Amino acid sequence: MNHLQRSERLTLVGAGPGDPDLITLKGIKALRNADIVLYDALVSKELLAYVQPHVPKVYVGKRAGLPSVPQAEINQLIVSYAHKYGHVVRLKGGDPFVFARGYEEVAYAETHGVQVNLVPGISSIASVPGLQGIPLTRRGMNESFWVITGTLADGSLSQDIERAAQTNATVVILMGRRKLAQIVDCFQQYQRHQLPVAVIQAGSTPKEKIALGTIQTIEAAVAQQGIGRPALIVIGEVVRLHQNFAAATHLSLNAEEVAA
Amino acid sequence: MNHLQRSERLTLVGAGPGDPDLITLKGIKALRNADIVLYDALVSKELLAYVQPHVPKVYVGKRAGLPSVPQAEINQLIVSYAHKYGHVVRLKGGDPFVFARGYEEVAYAETHGVQVNLVPGISSIASVPGLQGIPLTRRGMNESFWVITGTLADGSLSQDIERAAQTNATVVILMGRRKLAQIVDCFQQYQRHQLPVAVIQAGSTPKEKIALGTIQTIEAAVAQQGIGRPALIVIGEVVRLHQNFAAATHLSLNAEEVAA
Repeated sequence: MNHLQRSERLTLVGAGPGDPDLITLKGIKALRNADIVLYDALVSKELLAYVQPHVPKVYVGKRAGLPSVPQAEINQLIVSYAHKYGHVVRLKGGDPFVFARGYEEVAYAETHGVQVNLVPGISSIASVPGLQGIPLTRRGMNESFWVITGTLADGSLSQDIERAAQTNATVVILMGRRKLAQIVDCFQQYQRHQLPVAVIQAGSTPKEKIALGTIQTIEAAVAQQGIGRPALIVIGEVVRLHQNFAAATHLSLNAEEVAA
Repeated sequence: MNHLQRSERLTLVGAGPGDPDLITLKGIKALRNADIVLYDALVSKELLAYVQPHVPKVYVGKRAGLPSVPQAEINQLIVSYAHKYGHVVRLKGGDPFVFARGYEEVAYAETHGVQVNLVPGISSIASVPGLQGIPLTRRGMNESFWVITGTLADGSLSQDIERAAQTNATVVILMGRRKLAQIVDCFQQYQRHQLPVAVIQAGSTPKEKIALGTIQTIEAAVAQQGIGRPALIVIGEVVRLHQNFAAATHLSLNAEEVAA
């Protein structure tokens, strides 16, 4: 390889929510100019077609039964690859700044003398509900949305979820699928049983699945639709705007009657 | 014009925060296939280069001294253009589902028999702070961010801002530049004087400006930097991670001492 005129740099690129056409033009340009690419589990493989054929593509996400590469190791890989190859493109699902650890990778690289460029991606937060016909806010319905991680580093539920359950904000919970029962309990404590909820898996892709219900019925709906992880949870009156909401909640009410 | 095989449809496209390379590939494809384009003030004019030369491009945003086209009129234009031209592309700044009125345009078009496709855009919410080196959340610092509109339809301040001032969430306020004094008052009521604040105008573009400070100093910093509208307000400990935060707040402390 020609080491002349090679600049050691990192471009952190958000790959978007899943649909490969939802990457930005800036992201595509970065992939075309990469000397090496690091990508993780939530990235569409089709995006790797923008990378030149001879360029190494390194997977650092989770593999079946195996944990993902630890964050500290990814940070070090980025710096050593920048020294060895030049332009490292780090391709992350969604937006690298929304509950991702993009900031840590950038800070580490900069500390080690690697120049960093940032290319934001489409976050799932607004795009995935939006594509389902659920706006996060609507005039006259609410004035804000509150985005919360469902899983803290210590495995507990964020207390912000309890605070949010007492407001009129649309609540968007990422990485909360495994905590759904606790989240439901939390909203029930504040008598929000009838509040509409959507749980969406693989939004923007052909494998997309959605469960619609209320705080009271959503766990049954999620089980019925077979919603796995990762999934986005949206809680608030705006979910009522989904075109299938009335039908879905009517069905689940009937199911309850049958079960009763 | 050939009316055969013309499908009457609307594609709502998010143009991103300002940098024309932050549109998605899907958005570019829609622009290339447009029979007519409606765009507004916050959209980069460079994006119109993707539209075929003979295709009409209709501006519906604000003009100097004149109000923008009323929403009801835009809704009607979309439907009548779909009948007349076929494929209408509606290009909106940011993401059409984040405090934009995309939902209303879609609902109106669908009610009038126009098929709708949605192309999310990069919202300024996470991308603009992210490009400045401010992540909206950071492990150990906070677990959520709360996004609030600064200006309600009746001109009042959202009560959600007062609720948010009592939490540990990063608070992101859109369309709040004119309400900055009231927002500052609100946080001061809860003794949050030292909480870091960033106000960013024209994020992701060459005209970008940022003011950094605390609840106590941000109004002076915004005046000093000449930050106009529209601007994004970010309030929370994460703002401290901006590389110039220490220097900026040190300077403004000195300015206060001089003024005292």
